[in-house]
Amino acid sequence: MKPSSSPSEGGLFDGVLARGAVRDQVGDTAWLQAMLDAEAALAYAGAEVGLIGRDQAGTIAAFCRVDRYDLGELGRDAAAGGNPVIPLVRALTAAVYEADPEAAKHVHRGATSQDILDTAAMLVAYRALEPMLADLTATAETAARLADEHRATLMPGRTLLQHALPITFGLTAAGWLVALDTNAGRLSDVRDDRLAVQLGGASGTLASLAGSGVEVVAAYADVLGLAEPVLPWHTDRTRVAELAGALGTVAGAVAKIGRDVALLAQTEVAEVREEAPGGSSTMPHKRNPVSAVSAVAAAQRAPGLVSTLLGAMAQEHQRGAGSWHTEWLPLRDLLGTVGSAVASLRDCLGGLVVDADRMRANLDLTGGHLLTERVTTALTTRLGRLAAHDTVTRASAESVASGRPLGEVLAESGIPADEVAALLDPASYLGSADEFIDRALAAHESTVEEES
Amino acid sequence: MKPSSSPSEGGLFDGVLARGAVRDQVGDTAWLQAMLDAEAALAYAGAEVGLIGRDQAGTIAAFCRVDRYDLGELGRDAAAGGNPVIPLVRALTAAVYEADPEAAKHVHRGATSQDILDTAAMLVAYRALEPMLADLTATAETAARLADEHRATLMPGRTLLQHALPITFGLTAAGWLVALDTNAGRLSDVRDDRLAVQLGGASGTLASLAGSGVEVVAAYADVLGLAEPVLPWHTDRTRVAELAGALGTVAGAVAKIGRDVALLAQTEVAEVREEAPGGSSTMPHKRNPVSAVSAVAAAQRAPGLVSTLLGAMAQEHQRGAGSWHTEWLPLRDLLGTVGSAVASLRDCLGGLVVDADRMRANLDLTGGHLLTERVTTALTTRLGRLAAHDTVTRASAESVASGRPLGEVLAESGIPADEVAALLDPASYLGSADEFIDRALAAHESTVEEES
Amino acid sequence: MKPSSSPSEGGLFDGVLARGAVRDQVGDTAWLQAMLDAEAALAYAGAEVGLIGRDQAGTIAAFCRVDRYDLGELGRDAAAGGNPVIPLVRALTAAVYEADPEAAKHVHRGATSQDILDTAAMLVAYRALEPMLADLTATAETAARLADEHRATLMPGRTLLQHALPITFGLTAAGWLVALDTNAGRLSDVRDDRLAVQLGGASGTLASLAGSGVEVVAAYADVLGLAEPVLPWHTDRTRVAELAGALGTVAGAVAKIGRDVALLAQTEVAEVREEAPGGSSTMPHKRNPVSAVSAVAAAQRAPGLVSTLLGAMAQEHQRGAGSWHTEWLPLRDLLGTVGSAVASLRDCLGGLVVDADRMRANLDLTGGHLLTERVTTALTTRLGRLAAHDTVTRASAESVASGRPLGEVLAESGIPADEVAALLDPASYLGSADEFIDRALAAHESTVEEES
Amino acid sequence: MKPSSSPSEGGLFDGVLARGAVRDQVGDTAWLQAMLDAEAALAYAGAEVGLIGRDQAGTIAAFCRVDRYDLGELGRDAAAGGNPVIPLVRALTAAVYEADPEAAKHVHRGATSQDILDTAAMLVAYRALEPMLADLTATAETAARLADEHRATLMPGRTLLQHALPITFGLTAAGWLVALDTNAGRLSDVRDDRLAVQLGGASGTLASLAGSGVEVVAAYADVLGLAEPVLPWHTDRTRVAELAGALGTVAGAVAKIGRDVALLAQTEVAEVREEAPGGSSTMPHKRNPVSAVSAVAAAQRAPGLVSTLLGAMAQEHQRGAGSWHTEWLPLRDLLGTVGSAVASLRDCLGGLVVDADRMRANLDLTGGHLLTERVTTALTTRLGRLAAHDTVTRASAESVASGRPLGEVLAESGIPADEVAALLDPASYLGSADEFIDRALAAHESTVEEES
Repeated sequence: MKPSSSPSEGGLFDGVLARGAVRDQVGDTAWLQAMLDAEAALAYAGAEVGLIGRDQAGTIAAFCRVDRYDLGELGRDAAAGGNPVIPLVRALTAAVYEADPEAAKHVHRGATSQDILDTAAMLVAYRALEPMLADLTATAETAARLADEHRATLMPGRTLLQHALPITFGLTAAGWLVALDTNAGRLSDVRDDRLAVQLGGASGTLASLAGSGVEVVAAYADVLGLAEPVLPWHTDRTRVAELAGALGTVAGAVAKIGRDVALLAQTEVAEVREEAPGGSSTMPHKRNPVSAVSAVAAAQRAPGLVSTLLGAMAQEHQRGAGSWHTEWLPLRDLLGTVGSAVASLRDCLGGLVVDADRMRANLDLTGGHLLTERVTTALTTRLGRLAAHDTVTRASAESVASGRPLGEVLAESGIPADEVAALLDPASYLGSADEFIDRALAAHESTVEEES
Repeated sequence: MKPSSSPSEGGLFDGVLARGAVRDQVGDTAWLQAMLDAEAALAYAGAEVGLIGRDQAGTIAAFCRVDRYDLGELGRDAAAGGNPVIPLVRALTAAVYEADPEAAKHVHRGATSQDILDTAAMLVAYRALEPMLADLTATAETAARLADEHRATLMPGRTLLQHALPITFGLTAAGWLVALDTNAGRLSDVRDDRLAVQLGGASGTLASLAGSGVEVVAAYADVLGLAEPVLPWHTDRTRVAELAGALGTVAGAVAKIGRDVALLAQTEVAEVREEAPGGSSTMPHKRNPVSAVSAVAAAQRAPGLVSTLLGAMAQEHQRGAGSWHTEWLPLRDLLGTVGSAVASLRDCLGGLVVDADRMRANLDLTGGHLLTERVTTALTTRLGRLAAHDTVTRASAESVASGRPLGEVLAESGIPADEVAALLDPASYLGSADEFIDRALAAHESTVEEES
Repeated sequence: MKPSSSPSEGGLFDGVLARGAVRDQVGDTAWLQAMLDAEAALAYAGAEVGLIGRDQAGTIAAFCRVDRYDLGELGRDAAAGGNPVIPLVRALTAAVYEADPEAAKHVHRGATSQDILDTAAMLVAYRALEPMLADLTATAETAARLADEHRATLMPGRTLLQHALPITFGLTAAGWLVALDTNAGRLSDVRDDRLAVQLGGASGTLASLAGSGVEVVAAYADVLGLAEPVLPWHTDRTRVAELAGALGTVAGAVAKIGRDVALLAQTEVAEVREEAPGGSSTMPHKRNPVSAVSAVAAAQRAPGLVSTLLGAMAQEHQRGAGSWHTEWLPLRDLLGTVGSAVASLRDCLGGLVVDADRMRANLDLTGGHLLTERVTTALTTRLGRLAAHDTVTRASAESVASGRPLGEVLAESGIPADEVAALLDPASYLGSADEFIDRALAAHESTVEEES
Repeated sequence: MKPSSSPSEGGLFDGVLARGAVRDQVGDTAWLQAMLDAEAALAYAGAEVGLIGRDQAGTIAAFCRVDRYDLGELGRDAAAGGNPVIPLVRALTAAVYEADPEAAKHVHRGATSQDILDTAAMLVAYRALEPMLADLTATAETAARLADEHRATLMPGRTLLQHALPITFGLTAAGWLVALDTNAGRLSDVRDDRLAVQLGGASGTLASLAGSGVEVVAAYADVLGLAEPVLPWHTDRTRVAELAGALGTVAGAVAKIGRDVALLAQTEVAEVREEAPGGSSTMPHKRNPVSAVSAVAAAQRAPGLVSTLLGAMAQEHQRGAGSWHTEWLPLRDLLGTVGSAVASLRDCLGGLVVDADRMRANLDLTGGHLLTERVTTALTTRLGRLAAHDTVTRASAESVASGRPLGEVLAESGIPADEVAALLDPASYLGSADEFIDRALAAHESTVEEES
């Protein structure tokens, strides 16, 4: 019973912050339908266990369609009792009563408002994770392609925003790939193992279901395709927190890649650009990396939302006096914003234009200084580590001060010129870069196979 | 030009988390109208300075009405350039062009997208703070009334959720009052002094306005009734952070009071109850403090949102590559959720039913143990501080263990029985409670006078 | 090579916020030793692969003892290069040089500062998780005992801090148990699967190790007993974020239990108390639930720290320009504060005194109102759901208003008095509580077996 | 009584994350001394009001010196009661008793633990803000100098990390200046107006001081040089939150400037560099902007800490059951980390080397594309806004595609070549940049005068 589809209306900032398909799974309509799906599943579960007739369950389920209810009115009526399930159950019961008064007696049977709302939250999450995982997987595919294609594309490695040693763009993409695959794997595990139904009744005993409570829970979980919990988790919010943690981690991985792209696309760096960069209202020449920027923007909302959800875990006794209610919007916002971030990153990487010549040109900007580590190491066997380090530091400083090539200065310190030239060739100083790419691609392949 | 009115449609959780009048000031429609107000004000400012004709400004302004535009479409079209102002300016220009091609040349003149969006954000904040301050002020009035009416209403002071010394409910309410007044004062100062227009053009120089940029900024601020900044603050987000900090502090003050009410309303405590407590879908006897719970729920979203806004301050160079965009939704959400929290607290306190008899009964629950500090102090003059402390500790332990009244046990330690009785009378051990209430009420009066 | 022991000096707030054994694993000394362990392991790994002699590795390792270095001086010297590894390597190299100049050439070979610091962070985390998991497990054992012992101990279920339906204290404890077990399981998985060595050299290629980089990484991981990564993760902070998320979730679970205890220990509720409650400087009668309060206090620091770590994930290119450095203290603080929270909770639950009589007395406070759901359900078969709900609501209101017992009022509505009495007996309205306890205990048993 | 000096020992990460003079004001020793200062002030206040003899107060004060107490032991003994004031008062009383048993009776008179700890927190904050404000002011001075000196230093304005319009480095520095001045002003206001003593006794009534409570509070505030509150603020944490908000805002302003410097110092940009850039353990050529990176690193810890402090505001009744204790370390960490961030920024800007030639060279990189807005505006008067925009967009695209200078392409579209040349001169297209610098400097001057 997992799919849902409820294209909500567009918001003013959606093109930037609610991109992709997750958006339609986390709107008000999707939540309300998920609540109704929970009520329908509860009726079916009751029928499975023999508490109510199958026809009655079918009648109840027939009224569990979002277009039968006035969402705005339910929202307003939520004020009196503190949640929208109370007016929803009233409306659903009244509707079923019209069709079959006997069936109406079984609406919401055994459940408390939180059972329906928590189960709906888990359904919403499950449904939102589908397009999010699809976007993550597609983005990982792109990263895998870039890693393989650009194995030999030399570029400067950069630490603290300064040139360090040569790397390849393939290795950069392989790093992105591992992050994307790891995060997709964790998110997928959380979806399969941790998204569970909620059913406990008013105080978590399922008292009103007499002895069949446990059976009903199992059937309810089965109908909805969600996990079955050991016991009701009304005030054990570990599941919500694990979901939040996984989403927050995805967001961080996306923000890292998006920022890398924005930095590589800087006017002075220009090593990559987006396929369809953004314009500006006043500067027609701008080539803004809009998808990368949108990915970063959406991803950066996540840490605060995660902290709100973690902070709301301390829920009192058998139902929280506020902290439970605190969760609703941040959970929705977190799913939505991470979904948007991933969708933006997919667009960004999917059409990334890589300028290998510019990467090489940038690598050569410093005239070989990126290879001082190598030279230091080569000298270490002759001079010892500290002396070698100092020698190269001096040569490097002189080269910078005088503007003379580093190779020239180094050659004067007694190393044969051809050795210097060989030492300063970046292509031969890439260490295990290629092996690392292979390992990342192999891990990716095994992930993909596992999924299929 | 500050009022705006745009009742947005209701959401599923609005009755709990979007209560009161702030909600209508922070929706998409309100934002879009604020952007249009900024464009109109820019045209008027240009006319004021003589850059464009007054008629042209009037023509532009005539098209700055939200119902002329398709908000959803603008939101979708925001994707290409990374913000909704780009398509809005295009649509506005086209509309004005139909009416007066000359006027169309002056649409958005001198401005960049961020000028319009930031100014709109400040306008939205200004307008949202009006009902929020009204709710805060009304809540403070209620607290002042409670403080005065309940000067003599004895109740247990509670520390770490344990009875401590006797206090009065009036003192409790006076503490709430000071918090509410202080926060309203700060919020009001931020509104008046720190909400400023934004106008800098593409890189913050107002280059396209030639020499009249500074004059235009002054006129623009004047039209909108917002503060005039020293220079464009595109990437100096201090103003946004100050607003966020003030709102987060309000939220904390509200959460404290809401939690106090929920605790005082516990079944076992029952010292207060809401006028219209909430029911439950399954437990008709419930008297849930729904307004207090809703206040806490909404307020607890604030710290995470504040941290997101503070974290987004590190915006690159002349316009942030993502962090600026990150601000939009958290700022809106923060205004909205704090507005809802304050509105819920107003409902909660406005109809609070105080049970003075129950307060007194709870005070007597421990048979005088709350006054051990007083007894200790009285004994200190005879025995010294440490010995007195130990004596009373022993008497207290014996009283608890034996179930005998503390007074009886104490009388055996050599203090005259009538002195013990006098020492154990809570009404005569309230220290400066009354003076503190007077000070709080006096401070409140001076605040109210200042406002009017 | 995992154990470490470095009792750091006590701080002013340690008795409240740095309780238990985790504290000694996260102090400066523990970090410095972990860095040295990483250097030693790197030497051994080099020997394993044949890059350096075994004797040389042994010589280097002999100098990797924390008491040989001046921690404060290293900290000060960290300023110049931006991290403490740079002066440490200098000092270590100098020390080794004295003993064996050849060995000195191999100190820190192939590594960059971040390799050592990140590996140290993972070691610190690994070592800190040992006592934390021990405390969690012991706390879970206590919860299991309480769940079993108090299967029949009736108490009021409480929702929104109001009495709801009857439950047992055993069910309450079973809920705590599941939360503790789930969190311990996740934390244990993160420790075993996600704490990995870091080794990539200056730009993540291990360029200076020529072709043997991958082999060295494997040996390095083997020596340290940490996981081997697919490739260097210098700017893929997924591992750190997963650890943070797991810790933040533990904190939330602890805060929930600690808050429950503090609420149950309230003067008016008095259902539990700590074995050794806290006193007060001025109120000798106080029985403060100090361990619960300390647990909550420490746990509440976690969400903000997690958000900082998630926010720091967007690290630029091959090494972050600030965000990497941002991680160090929050990671340490998070480990330390969650460790303290768990240790405090262990103390709290370990000596928890449960007052079953008081629980029953509180349950009877409302004269049967907790069972209105049951009565409603019983009436539903006769009257239909809505009518039954309304009838009971009216009876409940009348009972409250008149002060007459609910049973008496209900009997007048036509239900036989003995049926009313049976319906109002809480012990026969516990639904699946016992089964849920059994399930929680069974799950706990299987967890314990798995661990051993 | 405000100065304190207690150089604490150095930590492993202090050179990066605890730079400057704030560090010594927030360590354990500083906190303990502040607690003792509060006890001494309380004694003097009692003497002022006539509750105790002046000699007795002097005797008490004589023992209020941090070196008389074992900090580690106090920390350990804090466990029993939940805070370190309880053992401290016991130790202080015992010490005074030895000297004068009568005086010992007056130690801690009227106060509760929270009075001393909260007052100490305010003192610690006051003392920490002194060096922080000194660093902020010095940094602002540097920014003012840079703004003035570099009025004519042309550089590219950058939006979304892409070149936008020309600006001057002076304008950039003026923007930093306004942010620094505004933040210093707010911080200074919070220090003067909002840091207040705490004195309420066990439940906030000052019951044990009988009628003289209010007088004692006034004298206590006077002795300490802190503000006098309207009433005790034990559970109204507005003051702490306001301080936190101000510090978080400072952090954001610092992070923005630090990030700007790190970006401007990138190898490919190279417009600025630090006077003493950092080296690397393996790459001797590195010129890492270590102070900027350290500033960013420390500043980024702030948002999470602020959210923890805001989240801890909901403190129960008359003393929080955990949330009060939660505050202690985050407040200290926030003061410390913001202090370090400001100190690092002071170092960073103080020695900033500005390369005006490189700025100009970068400005010319795009061959005039930065001035397309200007050209568009010039064409707008002939063609209308949309047509002008499209024309320039096309010319720009052709220039990029063909590699021909923009001026050449534009000249072909009918604009006279000399007009094109004039339009493409950046120095004549700076709008109000100079006026904005003047305004920022004037505002700075008035701030400085106000302070002195």
